[in-house]
Amino acid sequence: MKLIVQKYGGSSLGDSERLNNVAKRICNKVEEGFKVLVVVSARGETTNRLIALAKETVKNPEPRELDMLLATGEQISASLLSMMLNDRGIKSKSMNAFQLGLLTTSDYNEAQIKAINKETIHKNLTNNDVLVITGFQGVTEEGDLTTLGRGGSDTSAVALAASLNVKCEIYSNFAGIYTVDPKIYPQAKKLKYVTYDEMLEMAALGAKVLHPRSVEIAKKFNVELYCASSFSDEEGSYVVDNYNEYIEEPVLTGLSVDENQIQVTIFNLPTGHFFINKIFEIAANKNLNIDMISIIKNNEKVDISFSIVDSVIDNFRELLNESLKNYQENFIDFKNDLVKISVVGIGMKKARGVASRFFKAIEDIPIFLVTTSEIKISCLIPKEYKQKAVESLAKEFDL
Amino acid sequence: MKLIVQKYGGSSLGDSERLNNVAKRICNKVEEGFKVLVVVSARGETTNRLIALAKETVKNPEPRELDMLLATGEQISASLLSMMLNDRGIKSKSMNAFQLGLLTTSDYNEAQIKAINKETIHKNLTNNDVLVITGFQGVTEEGDLTTLGRGGSDTSAVALAASLNVKCEIYSNFAGIYTVDPKIYPQAKKLKYVTYDEMLEMAALGAKVLHPRSVEIAKKFNVELYCASSFSDEEGSYVVDNYNEYIEEPVLTGLSVDENQIQVTIFNLPTGHFFINKIFEIAANKNLNIDMISIIKNNEKVDISFSIVDSVIDNFRELLNESLKNYQENFIDFKNDLVKISVVGIGMKKARGVASRFFKAIEDIPIFLVTTSEIKISCLIPKEYKQKAVESLAKEFDL
Repeated sequence: MKLIVQKYGGSSLGDSERLNNVAKRICNKVEEGFKVLVVVSARGETTNRLIALAKETVKNPEPRELDMLLATGEQISASLLSMMLNDRGIKSKSMNAFQLGLLTTSDYNEAQIKAINKETIHKNLTNNDVLVITGFQGVTEEGDLTTLGRGGSDTSAVALAASLNVKCEIYSNFAGIYTVDPKIYPQAKKLKYVTYDEMLEMAALGAKVLHPRSVEIAKKFNVELYCASSFSDEEGSYVVDNYNEYIEEPVLTGLSVDENQIQVTIFNLPTGHFFINKIFEIAANKNLNIDMISIIKNNEKVDISFSIVDSVIDNFRELLNESLKNYQENFIDFKNDLVKISVVGIGMKKARGVASRFFKAIEDIPIFLVTTSEIKISCLIPKEYKQKAVESLAKEFDL
Repeated sequence: MKLIVQKYGGSSLGDSERLNNVAKRICNKVEEGFKVLVVVSARGETTNRLIALAKETVKNPEPRELDMLLATGEQISASLLSMMLNDRGIKSKSMNAFQLGLLTTSDYNEAQIKAINKETIHKNLTNNDVLVITGFQGVTEEGDLTTLGRGGSDTSAVALAASLNVKCEIYSNFAGIYTVDPKIYPQAKKLKYVTYDEMLEMAALGAKVLHPRSVEIAKKFNVELYCASSFSDEEGSYVVDNYNEYIEEPVLTGLSVDENQIQVTIFNLPTGHFFINKIFEIAANKNLNIDMISIIKNNEKVDISFSIVDSVIDNFRELLNESLKNYQENFIDFKNDLVKISVVGIGMKKARGVASRFFKAIEDIPIFLVTTSEIKISCLIPKEYKQKAVESLAKEFDL
């Protein structure tokens, strides 16, 4: 039996015409002799609407009940798509998390998949060519519904593919994975291949084509991943373990931009972990999302700088001042309106001079903070330089 | 443990304010020391919207998939109401058909309840004061979702009450059961008591306060039923087995009106079942909903007259003509624009002269067809006499 997992995102299922497109695509696969496990998200804005409905009902919806509510979105998509397939003469059946026996932890709103009942899948595939499966949801051992967090349908799809050891195709309104978000840089190139590790950095950096957790699972179980558009037949992008000898390895694979960064720098702190811990404790208590961190020791003093993403920081500055007031030498600086530009590429591991080319390309642009990993360089710059930086870097690295 | 079943209809759950009203009502019951099984319908127009969505997707939705789709409506209501109860500090949990283990036949779209897992209910009631249960739905032994047909939430509620041997309260936008639909006859009286049998005739006659199947189950298991408004604290109506010695038994309990009746009469048919069978076979093939039937034998000939409810009859007349063409003596008559007026009352069994009072009250009105049962008299009249007939009969029988 040839078996494949296909996942369709909410925007691909938004109306009858789109649903029909998706049905056609699945039919083609069945005609090629495949049995297809189709994983669906909630249609269009359904999940957002359900969340709004919950918040309109109570200020803080109970997490278990919220999952019970949200899980209906995918059940609607699954039943509609299955109807359409039946109507086209395809033997299809929609299955929700109960019917599938997709077990998760009981961390409501962000549950982790524990087990998938392969026997149930195989049993249902004997009488059906297609199973349309509700993504994003699972059940606990106690029989409570859970959801896997936003973008969790990608995770459902890859986990299914991993457990059945088959290929996973992710269809969305993106034609594949691009070197740079085409909205920012229309000349961006579509990547034919990208590695799991690059994708992990890129997903985390905001490329949004794949949910990071799904990429982690794909890497762990070496799932063959393919991302393409559900709206065209254009070839998409393959996410692979490593560039092999036949694939030319680019130095850099992609560039991403994160907006709304705030930089906080504290100069002249006494050395020792106490103050660093203190600062991050205050940030954590305020639920601030800390992204880049750089700490530089300078004789008996430490300078610490970090970026905060898109948050309400209100009295964070006062809290910092208060907790550091006995150390009069320090001073605190806040910078707003920054963007983070990051470049990613597994080729960086081998290629020399990437950092030099990076800084040379943006030599006219003020840089406030730089952090690096083995396959990534990120820097904070003023937002008015965003477009210039993107274009210079894309040109320099042929993105 | 004091236990009770309460059912809330879709119009009682339509927005946050109504939901809040319902939550308040449930809280009061919990404060009285009850544990409450709350059965909910889909909110407002949800079910109609989902059906429209299915029809917009495919012309003939597969029945299994339609149930999968429709079942989401009640899950939305249940989770929202449970959130609201949790928010008020009530220990509450929503439960769908899978979680409840409500087993049905696999007659999709009109499944019958086979079993209710009492153990699951009792287990879940140890940690919760309220279980908010999705009405209208069940699961088959194979784990497929089913629905019980329109109005099926009443059936779910009464079946739960029957299996647990507790009282069942049905809350809707009706303040109880009235002698006549107040929209037609505003002076109609609310009945404090009505028997199962009267209710069965009245539900079938279009009173619409309770789903007929739920009344059948209530009668069979002698469930104490109470119908009231979810919008006020006005006392509602009790559906009971029999009027006991303390309750004065009225001669007539109610009057109902069915609009859009068509009468078909065929005169001078040869005797014998052949032609009668033939006629009803043609009607059945055209999916016509036959209501009243009267057959009168007159020497060697038979006259047959019946009413058809609110249907597209298009070529029914031609089909009848065609099949009866060898019997030239017969002639067929169609009458449109009729209404059916029915009066119901268990007291009719004992009281004398009811028929005489009935016909005397409407002596000025042309009557085209009359049928009767032990506790009911129905007649077809031209629709322009509707209001006059309702007022005369209500006055005569003090309804």
